[in-house]
Amino acid sequence: MRSALYTGNSTIVVEERPAVPPAAGEVQIEVAYTGICGTDLHILHGDMDSRVRIPQTIGHEMSGRVAAVGPGVTGLTVGAPVTVMPLRWCGACPACLAGHHHICHRLDFVGIDSPGAMQQRWTVAADVVVPLPADLPLTHGALVEPTAVAVHDVRRAGLRAGEQAVVIGGGPIGVLIALVARSAGADVVLVEVDAQRRAIAGKLGIRTLDPVRDNPGGEVAAWTGGAGAAVAFEVSGSAAGLTTAVDLLAVRGRLVVVGLHSQKREIDLFRFFWRELTLVGARVYQREDYDTAIELLRAGEVGAGTLITHVEPLTGAAAAFDALRGGGGVMKVLIDCRATP
Amino acid sequence: MRSALYTGNSTIVVEERPAVPPAAGEVQIEVAYTGICGTDLHILHGDMDSRVRIPQTIGHEMSGRVAAVGPGVTGLTVGAPVTVMPLRWCGACPACLAGHHHICHRLDFVGIDSPGAMQQRWTVAADVVVPLPADLPLTHGALVEPTAVAVHDVRRAGLRAGEQAVVIGGGPIGVLIALVARSAGADVVLVEVDAQRRAIAGKLGIRTLDPVRDNPGGEVAAWTGGAGAAVAFEVSGSAAGLTTAVDLLAVRGRLVVVGLHSQKREIDLFRFFWRELTLVGARVYQREDYDTAIELLRAGEVGAGTLITHVEPLTGAAAAFDALRGGGGVMKVLIDCRATP
Repeated sequence: MRSALYTGNSTIVVEERPAVPPAAGEVQIEVAYTGICGTDLHILHGDMDSRVRIPQTIGHEMSGRVAAVGPGVTGLTVGAPVTVMPLRWCGACPACLAGHHHICHRLDFVGIDSPGAMQQRWTVAADVVVPLPADLPLTHGALVEPTAVAVHDVRRAGLRAGEQAVVIGGGPIGVLIALVARSAGADVVLVEVDAQRRAIAGKLGIRTLDPVRDNPGGEVAAWTGGAGAAVAFEVSGSAAGLTTAVDLLAVRGRLVVVGLHSQKREIDLFRFFWRELTLVGARVYQREDYDTAIELLRAGEVGAGTLITHVEPLTGAAAAFDALRGGGGVMKVLIDCRATP
Repeated sequence: MRSALYTGNSTIVVEERPAVPPAAGEVQIEVAYTGICGTDLHILHGDMDSRVRIPQTIGHEMSGRVAAVGPGVTGLTVGAPVTVMPLRWCGACPACLAGHHHICHRLDFVGIDSPGAMQQRWTVAADVVVPLPADLPLTHGALVEPTAVAVHDVRRAGLRAGEQAVVIGGGPIGVLIALVARSAGADVVLVEVDAQRRAIAGKLGIRTLDPVRDNPGGEVAAWTGGAGAAVAFEVSGSAAGLTTAVDLLAVRGRLVVVGLHSQKREIDLFRFFWRELTLVGARVYQREDYDTAIELLRAGEVGAGTLITHVEPLTGAAAAFDALRGGGGVMKVLIDCRATP
């Protein structure tokens, strides 16, 4: 079978590899689509070489069908549509004992810390497999994982219907957060510097602002009657985005930091004091977020068809990464892993 | 009557001034004790000259007795023991309309933005006056305001009985937070660099750590079984204190920023992501915090007698500020404003 491997030095190589038969408690999935995530770009750039075992198949946003089940696996039949919630926890650390398995001290993020989905057949532990509804297109099924990220972020914000929320950064996760927040009854504005990304968000009915051309502070003040936004999602990962998010918040506003800030950031704590703001860290998702994500995708609430701008064959995986790095009109890129697309 | 006035240039002058008779809706208080707050030190250092109208009587932690009431004031009788909740809000801004009067966009903090309590007779709006129980010593009554700060901070943390909490910084507010947290059922450790302040906290039964001599990271890890603390209160106002607080938190830990950070601070947002931490801004208090503070003081839960290390006459106000600036064994300093102490 074909497999796309990260081999270090910003290189993706597609080669023939033997499929791994499922052992006891495992499931072999015939992969349909694997999405490329921002984290996969970080891996390609070498930022996560301490966690990845080169050469390694990466990818953790996926859909497919059960190809084979190992001994002892129940409830999954060959041919059933599935996705994967790519988290494996230890069950014994303080985080797990407190019920926060998704932030286990020894979390195995499948696709980073162990082999991923960018291959034709992927063998995983049965407990990470999540059934998909039969009527959900498998292209949309590959969006369950990033949608669950957005659902988790919105849940961490404690967002309530009728609240005004600002999303800073309009890549796939930012747009998904805007859509999930809207489906939760919030009034949403998305701040994004790239015109093509703003256009895609606009197609989905999201109001957008250009932080360069527009004046987000003035626009949000006018929109909120001088109060500021109840919630801000910082999804850009940039220092400027963080400053903007803090400045746009109302008293008692909540800032969810979604974008990865790998270096320390300067934060105006005086404003956190003055307005009694809250900053909330958010990481991956819990199973209930997956369930909500599947419901939202099935109900057409997250515009999967518009978000998926490119579908490339597995043999073109390297080119697909290049396209995503190029930015612009590229939003969500899926790799078609099927043997006979 | 005598009044201690901040006259700019780090100077406090005590002079004779006419008492202000209470107008309609006002109350004249015969001040008993006025505490010196860290904010008063900031005023003396000139940090708040944009808010203070020089020369101005400062001070907002106080106790006294009603001396006279203006027309239309009901429910307050001459001689009744009282304190003041020194907040006046506009009632019309977005914060007030959302019910967050204590963080009103146009908040008048009485004693900073308008004249304070460091005088023999203080005339204030009746709606800031809070009755004190007859059996609460007036020295202890002067601690209601800082105790309410601690109550508010503990409430903002969402602290639950049985949780482990770390307090960084052992001045009066830090020790009060430790005591209020303990009374709420938490297990508390206080990190403070000054040996004399640690000794005072120790007298009140609070476990303390010296951040220089001890290893707070190792100590807290051992104390929490490797989990980290559920809650950290940053009360030092220092960059180092903030870093320590973030490092000591367990997954889903809450950091309440109490100390004033007037300059931007570098924060490790990766850790907020990795552990799903929350940072909470806290400012002053709400009326329910005052009620709780009075109950705690009356019940002897906050060791007022131990915290009050110095009582100085009004004529010695300047010396009292000097003593507080000197640090060391000085914890809470009260100015005795009575005509015949």
